Amino acid sequence: MEDRTYTAIGSSNIAFIKYWGRRDDKINLPNNSSISMTLDKNVGTKTSVLFSDKLERDKLFINGKEENLGEGANEKLRFIGEMLDHYKKAAGINTKVLIVSENNFPSDSGLASSASGGATLAFLLANALDLKMHPREISIMARRISGSACRSVYGGIVKWNAGSKHDGSDSFAEQVVDHKHWPDLMDMIAIVDPSKKKVSSSAGHTVTVRTSTLYKARLQVAEEGVKKVVEAVKDRDFHALAEAVMRDSNNMHATMIDSWPPIMYLNDASRNIIYAVHELNESEGRYVAAYTFDAGSNAHIITTSSNRGKVIKMLEETGVVRSIIESRMGAGPEMLEGEESLIDQESLAPRHNRNPEIGKND
Amino acid sequence: MEDRTYTAIGSSNIAFIKYWGRRDDKINLPNNSSISMTLDKNVGTKTSVLFSDKLERDKLFINGKEENLGEGANEKLRFIGEMLDHYKKAAGINTKVLIVSENNFPSDSGLASSASGGATLAFLLANALDLKMHPREISIMARRISGSACRSVYGGIVKWNAGSKHDGSDSFAEQVVDHKHWPDLMDMIAIVDPSKKKVSSSAGHTVTVRTSTLYKARLQVAEEGVKKVVEAVKDRDFHALAEAVMRDSNNMHATMIDSWPPIMYLNDASRNIIYAVHELNESEGRYVAAYTFDAGSNAHIITTSSNRGKVIKMLEETGVVRSIIESRMGAGPEMLEGEESLIDQESLAPRHNRNPEIGKND
Repeated sequence: MEDRTYTAIGSSNIAFIKYWGRRDDKINLPNNSSISMTLDKNVGTKTSVLFSDKLERDKLFINGKEENLGEGANEKLRFIGEMLDHYKKAAGINTKVLIVSENNFPSDSGLASSASGGATLAFLLANALDLKMHPREISIMARRISGSACRSVYGGIVKWNAGSKHDGSDSFAEQVVDHKHWPDLMDMIAIVDPSKKKVSSSAGHTVTVRTSTLYKARLQVAEEGVKKVVEAVKDRDFHALAEAVMRDSNNMHATMIDSWPPIMYLNDASRNIIYAVHELNESEGRYVAAYTFDAGSNAHIITTSSNRGKVIKMLEETGVVRSIIESRMGAGPEMLEGEESLIDQESLAPRHNRNPEIGKND
Repeated sequence: MEDRTYTAIGSSNIAFIKYWGRRDDKINLPNNSSISMTLDKNVGTKTSVLFSDKLERDKLFINGKEENLGEGANEKLRFIGEMLDHYKKAAGINTKVLIVSENNFPSDSGLASSASGGATLAFLLANALDLKMHPREISIMARRISGSACRSVYGGIVKWNAGSKHDGSDSFAEQVVDHKHWPDLMDMIAIVDPSKKKVSSSAGHTVTVRTSTLYKARLQVAEEGVKKVVEAVKDRDFHALAEAVMRDSNNMHATMIDSWPPIMYLNDASRNIIYAVHELNESEGRYVAAYTFDAGSNAHIITTSSNRGKVIKMLEETGVVRSIIESRMGAGPEMLEGEESLIDQESLAPRHNRNPEIGKND
């Protein structure tokens, strides 16, 4: 196999109907289907890969830091190790690999980088090894690294079918519409001061499933929510979309609070933004914005480009927003041909060309 | 009928399993049973009543302010008017009445005064008119003023049976144990800065019942919670009581957030206290305190007198507690014989002897 580097860029996604709770923690099989919007490349990950016999072992660098893939590695990194083995087996090679991955959004922004990084890596490896994999298969690979990563394998609006099989072969993502279907839909990410107390979302999934007395009722609600969002997206019906998005966020956070011990991600800043969005919509006499919160206190405000100014004004007036990251609907991961790789092929090491402003709190 | 005044004192209660959601808004019929601890008289209401033919009309003074009982009165005051008519009919009289009621806790403390005031008035009228009413009947009267008032008709631990009849005749409270059964159980009420946005609890009931997709699941959980609390109280099992109390508070607030639009009473101060209670219990290796929140951000910390010091230290260390009101389990409403009435019989008016520090923000 020729020593050359391959580079891809992919992006994060924001769930309209959330993934919360798994029937299998090992291979990330969810209890309910979910649906998301893939974000643009400004909330993304660039990843380069080099297969070379000159490498003594598999190496992974994330945001400039080498991560351990072997014994003692954390869950996500172990999944990456397993995925590497799987890809190599499919390609019929045993060559060592160097992976260098960098996010282009601040690591202290509270945005999930694992969806962006996981999807980009799964996509990149399939292409670098020329495996002719169906995107569904790539999404299954990405799912194993981080559940929601499976949705970032496509652009546009993406649905992740929960599936029912034990081996996860029917738990994959598929595109509902591409990014050109509703191009003015966007996500304004309002970064607020984080809460002191943090709960890992991975642990949270398990706690809610095991303890929340309301969780079973949520599963039914979420499946219905996915159907509503699919219809709203197809019809470009912002009103229906907005209500489904906000209610699902509230519903998920309700089951979190009902968990034992309780999981509380929404803080006063989040609450202020929730009320401000309701007030903005009321004063406009129609829905112009929808809030949604993942496992953190930052607000994602879903809106359309014509209401961008109103949303910025509303967020600024809350007095709790530190910064806003704007992202449009993205086209999904792509190979970067001819662009500079993150890998220096001569030294078999990362190029260290990363933006010093990015990830400086790593 | 002889012109003389009668005076009673009653107190508020703190629900261990909450009342949230009604099947009948007009006569306050709840969807689920609930259970509470009646507080001591320091979180109470003193009420005097005078029936006299010299009065030109029925008059009600609450915390020094005359309230309108007739046309245009708010819901609770209309219920009081209806209750007066009911009592007079039962006594076979048509005499006008003057009622003077005063709470002995700050009106800006966020503590529900309607439970204390409603129970005291229902109890006082029954005794003043010598109606020989069964406490159950008095609790039904109190329920009509303010649902949870029906539980304050008794001391100790009190259960309110939801009942199923349309006329509410089986929706009454009854005592589980009296205040001597577990005398060291207490409520430390931590007053925190209120949230800017307020939601009326009366409107909230209706919104949750109509919109929360999780509410139906809660009803089952609450009924089971009542059984758990009854057992825990009978066994004086603080561990079982604490867990049931905390989980029910979280469960109710979960259905509130799941309401549409969402209802959020817990703020960052509440969250800090919730985490501090979990940390205290963890560090002690057993439950020494339990939090519970009504329709507001103030925390009620249920504990036993031997752990009072630990709870005060824990609350102070959160840095979010403005003041603490301590209350033991109360004996329920009682008639005050020979004590000074709140009514000046000569002028047929309130005595204006109230503590100027109380209710000054009315």
